Parts: sequence; C-alpha cells; structure tokens
Amino acid sequence: MAQLTSRREDYSKWYNEIIIKANLAETSNVRGCMIIKPYGFAIWEKIQNILNKKFKNTGHDNIYFPLFIPKSLFSKEACHIDGFSQECAVVTHYRLKKKDNNIIIDPEAKLEEELIVRPTSETIIWHTYRRWIKSYRDLPILINQWANIIRWEMHTRLFLRTSECLWQEGHTAHTNKKEAVCEAKQMLNIYTNFIENYMAIPVIQGVKTAIERFAGAEETYCIEAIMQNGKALQIGTSHFLGQNFSKAFNVKFTNNKGYQEYVWGTSWGISTRLIGALIMIHSDDKGLVLPPKLAPIQTVIIPIFKNEEQLKRITKIVSNIKNILKENNISVFYDDRNIYTPGWKFNEYELKGVPIRINIGIKDLEKGMVEIVRRDNLNKQFVNYNYIGKIIPELLTIIQKNLFKKALERRNNFITKVDDYNEFKKILNEKGGFILAHWDGTSETEKKIKLDTKTTIRCIPLKKSKEKGKCIYSGKPSNQRVFFAKAY
Amino acid sequence: MAQLTSRREDYSKWYNEIIIKANLAETSNVRGCMIIKPYGFAIWEKIQNILNKKFKNTGHDNIYFPLFIPKSLFSKEACHIDGFSQECAVVTHYRLKKKDNNIIIDPEAKLEEELIVRPTSETIIWHTYRRWIKSYRDLPILINQWANIIRWEMHTRLFLRTSECLWQEGHTAHTNKKEAVCEAKQMLNIYTNFIENYMAIPVIQGVKTAIERFAGAEETYCIEAIMQNGKALQIGTSHFLGQNFSKAFNVKFTNNKGYQEYVWGTSWGISTRLIGALIMIHSDDKGLVLPPKLAPIQTVIIPIFKNEEQLKRITKIVSNIKNILKENNISVFYDDRNIYTPGWKFNEYELKGVPIRINIGIKDLEKGMVEIVRRDNLNKQFVNYNYIGKIIPELLTIIQKNLFKKALERRNNFITKVDDYNEFKKILNEKGGFILAHWDGTSETEKKIKLDTKTTIRCIPLKKSKEKGKCIYSGKPSNQRVFFAKAY
Repeated sequence: MAQLTSRREDYSKWYNEIIIKANLAETSNVRGCMIIKPYGFAIWEKIQNILNKKFKNTGHDNIYFPLFIPKSLFSKEACHIDGFSQECAVVTHYRLKKKDNNIIIDPEAKLEEELIVRPTSETIIWHTYRRWIKSYRDLPILINQWANIIRWEMHTRLFLRTSECLWQEGHTAHTNKKEAVCEAKQMLNIYTNFIENYMAIPVIQGVKTAIERFAGAEETYCIEAIMQNGKALQIGTSHFLGQNFSKAFNVKFTNNKGYQEYVWGTSWGISTRLIGALIMIHSDDKGLVLPPKLAPIQTVIIPIFKNEEQLKRITKIVSNIKNILKENNISVFYDDRNIYTPGWKFNEYELKGVPIRINIGIKDLEKGMVEIVRRDNLNKQFVNYNYIGKIIPELLTIIQKNLFKKALERRNNFITKVDDYNEFKKILNEKGGFILAHWDGTSETEKKIKLDTKTTIRCIPLKKSKEKGKCIYSGKPSNQRVFFAKAY
Repeated sequence: MAQLTSRREDYSKWYNEIIIKANLAETSNVRGCMIIKPYGFAIWEKIQNILNKKFKNTGHDNIYFPLFIPKSLFSKEACHIDGFSQECAVVTHYRLKKKDNNIIIDPEAKLEEELIVRPTSETIIWHTYRRWIKSYRDLPILINQWANIIRWEMHTRLFLRTSECLWQEGHTAHTNKKEAVCEAKQMLNIYTNFIENYMAIPVIQGVKTAIERFAGAEETYCIEAIMQNGKALQIGTSHFLGQNFSKAFNVKFTNNKGYQEYVWGTSWGISTRLIGALIMIHSDDKGLVLPPKLAPIQTVIIPIFKNEEQLKRITKIVSNIKNILKENNISVFYDDRNIYTPGWKFNEYELKGVPIRINIGIKDLEKGMVEIVRRDNLNKQFVNYNYIGKIIPELLTIIQKNLFKKALERRNNFITKVDDYNEFKKILNEKGGFILAHWDGTSETEKKIKLDTKTTIRCIPLKKSKEKGKCIYSGKPSNQRVFFAKAY
C-alpha cells in the first residue's frame, strides 16, 4: 500500500488522499458534485441522528419544502438575491426530445418562469409563512429540514466546498426580537455542544462582521475552528434575520392586543462540510483519525493465524468479545478475511481511523491476552480478554477526551495576540492561525486588510474581553479584539 | 369545524381535504411540488427508520450520488432515455444577474452540457460502477440512497403524483443472474413485509408486463394495492436490470477464472407515495386513520374540566399515565390547552387519525375510571386507569391487526374473476377493483384493452395458479390470469 503524502509535504494533497483512500467520498462526473461513499455517509448519518434528537428536544419539527424556487420569489429580498445570484443553478426546460439521433432539450418545453435550485430556503419558506401565520397563536414556528442544496462553486474541494451539499436548515418565526435572538443563540450553543463533545473540535463562538454576514440577516452567529495548517474554517452559522424576510414577504401577525406586527425570524445550518473539518482536525500522516462518538466502526478485531484451525480457535473467543462489546453499545467489526495479511489490515484500519484495534494472535490467546492499539496515539497494550467489557468503553472515552485535548492545545497555540500591522503580516505568513487584534469596526478597514493580506475577520468573539486598544490597521480606537485568519 | 366531504360524495375531494385538514402537506408555489408539513413528515420519518433498518440488516449501505446527471450520461441506455425524456427538469445556466432592475439569467453563464435533475439514478450510478468494479472480489455492491427526485408530471396529486418526490433507491451489482434476481425478489419481500405489517395494507405481488416495465429493466417486480374507490395503486417496485445498464455503461468484472463478464444489476424503490396509499386505504369520513405502528402520536389524552383546580387534579393523574405509556414505548400527547373545547379536540384528533384517545373527566376520575376511544371503529370503553399500562399496548396491537383485516376484506371484495369481455367492462364501470382475467400475453391485446377501457394490467401475479383459459379480449389461449385495474 502506497504511503500517504505527509501533511508537511502537501497539506491539501494529504487531505484529498485521506478522503479517497479511506473511502469517504470521491468526485463525480458532475462539476463540483461529490459521491459520498458508504464509510463517509455513515459518519453523516451519525451526525444527523445526534443533531436531530437535539433539535427535536428543543421543540423543532422536521418538514420538507420544494427543491425549486421560482425566480420571482427568490428575488424578493434584496440582500439575499445579491448574495446568491452568482451561484444559482437554473432550470429552464422540462422535457428532452430526440432529433437526428441526438437527445436535445425540447424548445417547446420552456418553463414560463425559471426555477432556481435552492441554495437555501428562506425565500420559499417565508413566502409560505405568509399563509401559515395570522395570529400570535400561530407562533413560534420551529421547523427544520434535512436537504440538498446547490451553490455553483468555481473552486471546489471534497466536503469543504462542493456545488451540491447536504445540510440541515432550521427556519423559525417569532412574535418578538428577544425570543428570536434567543433562538439563534440557542442553536449556536447546540452546534457548539455537538461539535465540541461529539466531533472533539474546539470552536470559537462569535458574530460575523457586516461584510461576512449571511445575505439577509441582521446578525450572523458563527463557530470557527482552526485546521492543522493554520487555516480557519467556518463550521456552523445561526442567523438572526430580524424582520428582513417578513417585510420582504409581508408576513404579519395580529398580536395579543389586536395590532398587526411583522414577524421575527431566524435560520441556522450545518452541512457535510463538518466532515471536512473532522478529517482536517484530527487526522495524521497515517490517515484518518475519528472520535469514537462518530466512528462508524469503533473497534476492529484482527485475527493473526497461520491455518484454519487457529482461525477457528480465535473466532470462538472473538464471538464472546463481540457480544460483550455489543452489550456495551460499541460497534465492532471482525475482519477475518484471508485474502489480506494482518499487516495490510493494520494499515487499512489506521487509514480508516478506527479508534481501537484488537489484535488476537494464537500465542497471546493461550495466555488469555489480546493486544489493544489506540488509533489516536498508536499506543499498544496487552490486556486479559476477560476485561474487554470494562477496558474498551473506558478507552473510547479516554480517546474521545484526548482528541479534544490535543485539538484544543493546537488551537490555543494557533491564537496569537498582535498589536502591530507588520507583526500581523509576519505571523500570518510564518505561522498562520487566528490573530487576535484590534479593529476599528469599519468595513473600509476590513476590506483593506483583506485586499492586502487575503485575511478576513472570522468573527467578533462572543466571550468579550472589554479591552481598549488601537486598530491594527488604521490606528483608530477599538473596544475589543477580533479574530482574523486566512480561511477555507 | 366544517365537515369533511364524504368519500361517497367526492372521493378525490375527500382525499385532498384530509391532507389539508390533518396538516399532512399542502401544495406549494412550484408547480406540482408539495410542502410536507410536520405531521406528514413525521410519518415519512417512521417509514424511513423502519425500512432503513431492514435494508441495513440485509447488508445494504447508504450512500449519496449527485442530484444532477449530465445529459450525455443520462442518454446512454436507450430504453431508459425513452422512458424518462418526457419529464426531465433541465438545468441550463448557473448564474443570475441584474438588468434594468430585473433579475435575469446571465446568458454568459450557460452550461457547456445541460444537466438533468435526477428522475432516478441508474445512469450516474452505473457510470460510477465502471470505476468501482474490476474483479469479482468487488461484488456484490449493495447500496441505497434516500433522496429527492424530479419527474415533471402534468397532472399532479398530493403524495400520489408530484413533480418532486422523496424516495429511496437501492442499486445493486452482482456477478451472476441468479443472485441479482434473488436480490430483486428479496427487496420486494422486504417491501411487502413492511407494507403489510406496518402500514396494514394488503398487497398483491406480481411482475409487470413489458409495456408497464421500468425503462431499462428486464423484469419489474411490483406490489399493487386497491384503494377504497376501487382504483389500483402501485406502491413499490423492484427491478431486475439484467445486464442492460452494465452493457450501456461498459461495466465488466474479471470472474474467478480470469474472464471478463458484464455485471448484473437491480434497483428498487419506494416513495412518499406510500403516504398517499396509507391515507386512502384506512381513512374514513371523519378523517385520517393511522395504523399504530406509523402514527406520530399513538395516544392523545384530553382532560375534561371546568376550572383550574379540576385541571390540576387531572394533570396529576395524567403525568402517571404518561410515564407508564412512555415506559411501554407508546407515544403520548396531553392536550391541556384551554383555548379549545373537549369537543373541538375530539374532532381534531379524529381528523388526525390518532389511534387511541383517552378522555379524562373529573367525575370518572373519582371512580378511578377513564374513557378510551378507538379511532379505527370509534368504540368507547371505560377502564380503570391502573390498568392503562396493560390495556393500551394490547389495544394498539388489536387496532393494527383490525386495520389490516378490514383492508384485506375490502381488497378481497374488490377482486372479481371475469371470463367475458362485456362482463369485464361492466364490472369496471360498476364496481371497479381488480379484475382477474385471462390474457394472451401480447402487448397488442394489452394496448387495445387499455385504449378501449383505460384499464392496465397491474401485474402478472407471482402466486401463480396455473389455470388454462382463453384471453378475455382475443380469445387466444392463456396459461394464467392477470390483474387488470384502473390505476392512479
């Protein structure tokens, strides 16, 4: 098996190779659209199941809105259309026909109005809310959908940026601003909790600047993480929409005093991009490293044998071990295929990021022992197989915690406080990561820094340290530091 | 609350009213595309969860293929393109722009090759199989995806026939014909088991005639059911694709003797159409009737009270009842809203098809009694609330069985053996349902009968009664009866 390109050598190539070799996904024949393979999709299903429960526990129902949005609806909110018009796939016809042995579009089957393949569903949902919402009794509406969206991207990258992506989009409607802001923050916290406790990725919570805000939002709350190469990645957003969409779509409710008011809204989403973050944060030069809580296979058992009789003896013990692990809700795969050597299998499951490997050799077995190998640090230990039911669950918890701890240390090392613009540029080039610096709060300065350094303000942190200072670029006064970084 | 139109009065109107009033779904602004509302989507989620487990238990993995299929790929299998070309949504552009304050398609952003929004994914999947399959060791491939598809329908009907629909599509690849046929039949049996045991819908298993076969299949296995108005509905299909797609996409494998062979395939799917069948089969003039195994709410509790103090006393008992039901894995909703009367609520949950309603009045409570009302037959009984934990689970099982039994009786009454063509037409007009009649096996006769009576051969039954006879239309010899019906 060919070695993986190392991170140091070519980070981007390393990332792609892991995805291909660990069988997570691959590019398709359709520009920018990927095929998510069983192993990658199993991770997505775990993400969906966990988040779905959290959404439902906070009162959200799942629904489904159409894939297509008529162009006129899509264009109603001015900022929104400005933000998305550059990347819309447009359906113009509804039939093909044969002509001279070729298949062509039937020119007679032209749609009266073009349909946009949804890049996000605010417009069709707010148009529908107008029918659904009459009185304060109809509010709040708390809904979510798991769906595919299309954003026609020019530069695509598996999981991180694809023309089609799978995601969830929550859309809520409220009687007042306070409740809507509360909802947007609640969902940001649900994301944060999930990403830190399940994905083992430490994040920074913040709000976006006006330039980076979602097209149509009043405030975009976000979570940002830093990858091993020092580049930032936005991994979830929750938008307080204010009354922008209710005004654009004329959605009013009668309040409990009998007066008409515009409805307040939020929307929030995460996507298969999360899997890109998961790969980038934890993996190493041997391949994928998965946190136990999201690993499709948590434990793999590899028999080491010379003949059928030995395999039989091992398999007998393994069936006990499998039962014990299953009773503990730990997923286990026994790879007893004889077309591959144990060495090949060791590599394979390291590449696939399986958190724990149990090697069972015939000699160890006679002593009642099996070898346990951790994927996170590659440490090995021999244990008596009678204690498997106790050791493996504990070890999975330890691995989960260790991955978060390692990622947190790396993240913290990637945060640099800077007060000088030359230093700012030096750190960016030499080290990367987050730069925590003062900013004067203007879009003008933000744009100039971006033009000069390709760096964006990732977020204004929610955990505010009210520290006065001077803008790193303009020298104007500032009340708090913000996070700058180069980003995916 | 306005009464529902009765089935006798206008079956089609009755069906639509149930969907709207029970809050299952509604039409959207996009022609033929529906919005699935929380209550409707909750049923779809139950269907997904149950089937997903059955698919995984039989070795199938979930994956995700792109929404778009390049026109050239889509056109490769001749029958397939003939079957689907009439109903394809086509993406031709990838950008909008502003012009004179209007939003128009950017003519410069025309795609080099048009993209078809998938009506089904055989073509892109078989194109990909060519990369994935080299040797017999790569087979079988057993995959499934839950996805949205577009088939541009001219006459749409909520759930039954929509331009966009949610479905699952399984796609498998095998080394030999026997295994592929076996897979196609296995999936038909899984569908049948699910539809009979969970949806409580009795079905007839059969194969389609050449005319009704899936475009690109060698054999289409199907399950058909009869609705209360005597019309048939196809509710699931499983296709043996033979080598049609492997030949069209040149997918070969090296067999264990070192020779190249074409791969054998299957595909199989069910869709949100199932929910249409569910509504049509069991519901009555009071509204939806749901089988307990698929009901989002299995039990609703309605307090009957005059003042806050009474409500408090009821609520105290209810919290016990809720716990007991939850321990038995029975979903329960306590509707203690005081803006609606008990009478309004009775109607509401009858309309929504909740299998069991528990009415709790203050006087009965003093005697330790609550009233239980079954939705399937509207029977009422008073029971001691200490026995709730025993009675409700039993009753749900009884309701589930009773719904199947009622549907089976109705179905059997809708099967008429006919040996004379005039009788055939008479039965069709007066009674409808399945007509079990002899057919000479030719497409010519099938077409003539269709032209004459708008009736199609729903299937050639798998349970064969080798009965010789004469074709009802041509008088030519026949070896078995087939099922004719008017269909959705």
